[in-house]
Amino acid sequence: MRLYLAGPDVFLNNFGAELLGAKKELCARYGVEGVSPMDGQLALGGLDPFAQGVAIYTANVRHMLSCDGVIANMTPFRGISMDVGTAFEMGFMAAAGKPVLGYSNVTDSYAVRAESYYRGRHHEAVDRYTEGTSIESFEMADNLMMAGAVHASGFEVVRCRVAAGQELTALEGFEACLRQLQQRR
Amino acid sequence: MRLYLAGPDVFLNNFGAELLGAKKELCARYGVEGVSPMDGQLALGGLDPFAQGVAIYTANVRHMLSCDGVIANMTPFRGISMDVGTAFEMGFMAAAGKPVLGYSNVTDSYAVRAESYYRGRHHEAVDRYTEGTSIESFEMADNLMMAGAVHASGFEVVRCRVAAGQELTALEGFEACLRQLQQRR
Repeated sequence: MRLYLAGPDVFLNNFGAELLGAKKELCARYGVEGVSPMDGQLALGGLDPFAQGVAIYTANVRHMLSCDGVIANMTPFRGISMDVGTAFEMGFMAAAGKPVLGYSNVTDSYAVRAESYYRGRHHEAVDRYTEGTSIESFEMADNLMMAGAVHASGFEVVRCRVAAGQELTALEGFEACLRQLQQRR
Repeated sequence: MRLYLAGPDVFLNNFGAELLGAKKELCARYGVEGVSPMDGQLALGGLDPFAQGVAIYTANVRHMLSCDGVIANMTPFRGISMDVGTAFEMGFMAAAGKPVLGYSNVTDSYAVRAESYYRGRHHEAVDRYTEGTSIESFEMADNLMMAGAVHASGFEVVRCRVAAGQELTALEGFEACLRQLQQRR
């Protein structure tokens, strides 16, 4: 079984090589193959920035199509929600009929984070225009489409409390996803 | 042709009925049918919050599968990126092989918004742990997965400058997407 390793991991130092390497090792221990978005060669030289982005998109789609499921790092990234590229990839794999699993290293529900966002007025310089919009209160880790997809796959989003500063890199939640998969196989 | 109307529109007053109604009227003028996530009846009574979220997920998936394409409102929502549920839906429709279109009522690229986020220190109370992560600089409206999907569909993300306060509701970008579709048909 090949598992796509979705997450903002690729935005860490050296394209997340260390974290993604550790995830692949963990996968191997559970008898599955972890596939990183950074796997393979990608010739970006000579391309303008937009074309580079498109080339990476195409490579990521190819990786996803070659996999049998996804484990997504749903930890909030640059805001109160998870990385949007990772959200896209969960939707992609859901439509492809492949199991969707995910973990977040922040335990508060989306509703708690959104309420804190408005209370703190941190949004004022960012998107003041969203004030007054209704906040999903489904006791889910993030927007219902992600939690819904994981649930529809027969799994549950893992929410882990980790040490401050380890939110993007702690692997307990990732390993808990591997255990969920193992129990099903 | 049935078009799924993805976006944070549903978080507006009265589940975005006014905005989604206006989108449906615009669609009709272009000879297509706009399908709102809120269409149809959904019996949520007696369900706990999590089960309500799952029921809405299931209904949204059914709506998407009944459609032939999607126009997504990619305007930044509660932060510097678009709504993650909408991102999921763009990925879902991309994997289903259906045309993916999108517009944003904020013109700055993702890189500009992310740099401003860190410069303003607005993230400190939200996700301090993302500091130092690399910022995508592909001159795209948001993460490359979304812009890549629109591009792979043969379209381009529409970026509109609108009056302050109209970011979630202005329809010029939505109509520009309908024109892109019309030119292709």
